[in-house]
Amino acid sequence: MKRKSLEGNACAIARTLDVVGDWWSILIIREAIAGTTRFNDLHRQLGVAKNILTIRLRALVEEGLLETVPASDGSAFQEYLITGKGRALLPALVALAQWGEEFLFEPGEPLLVPVDAKGGRPLKKLRIQSQDGRSLRLDEILMRTVRY
Amino acid sequence: MKRKSLEGNACAIARTLDVVGDWWSILIIREAIAGTTRFNDLHRQLGVAKNILTIRLRALVEEGLLETVPASDGSAFQEYLITGKGRALLPALVALAQWGEEFLFEPGEPLLVPVDAKGGRPLKKLRIQSQDGRSLRLDEILMRTVRY
Repeated sequence: MKRKSLEGNACAIARTLDVVGDWWSILIIREAIAGTTRFNDLHRQLGVAKNILTIRLRALVEEGLLETVPASDGSAFQEYLITGKGRALLPALVALAQWGEEFLFEPGEPLLVPVDAKGGRPLKKLRIQSQDGRSLRLDEILMRTVRY
Repeated sequence: MKRKSLEGNACAIARTLDVVGDWWSILIIREAIAGTTRFNDLHRQLGVAKNILTIRLRALVEEGLLETVPASDGSAFQEYLITGKGRALLPALVALAQWGEEFLFEPGEPLLVPVDAKGGRPLKKLRIQSQDGRSLRLDEILMRTVRY
């Protein structure tokens, strides 16, 4: 199914989904942040078909979320490294993880989540704040068109 | 293309994507938060095919992110209202919007983003914090399996 492009959409959420609004793209970014750099390792870790992985990796490199470099061991392989633009998706990954943790897991079930590298402790729940730092309730947020 | 189910996946991000990891689901949630409640209005606002909208709405109701109620004007239509579980996705929507705003828009381009209802001002950039409230850099975050 050909997807409609949201590339020129005024909605910042929609435009982001045009770049990463695909299951596999988000999971590839997760793996890249976790330090998985090679095609075969990504294939194995994610259980994604090689043809799909090839297409997604190419798109993520084109969009500048991953970059390719020669393998660090001098072999003929290339490695896929996360860029600053790719790593900047971490707040979205954290938000998705915290929602899943709250609504989709039973107590005691092991879960894979983003954690504080120092000590490995879970992160603080994300809070939405106004420009001047007030914590906002979820019903205090609207969608609005702005221009800077 | 049949998608692999990530329902039992230990990754909290993957399990969330199993529920909302679809372009249209996220945009329907955005519209529901913005107060669009009727099928025809969602169809018009999103420009999504009616058959796809029907399938996505049914899934979002089954998962408890939307609920159906009789139309408030007494007509035969039903309305789709966002639930607390649906609204709890707002941090993820804010994170996706802030990423898009940073990387995919030109200065001066109008953009639709979540804002503070009081005054309509843009939100503060989300910060990732450790349990004890330290702000973490993006390279201070790892993926780890935990159990509570």
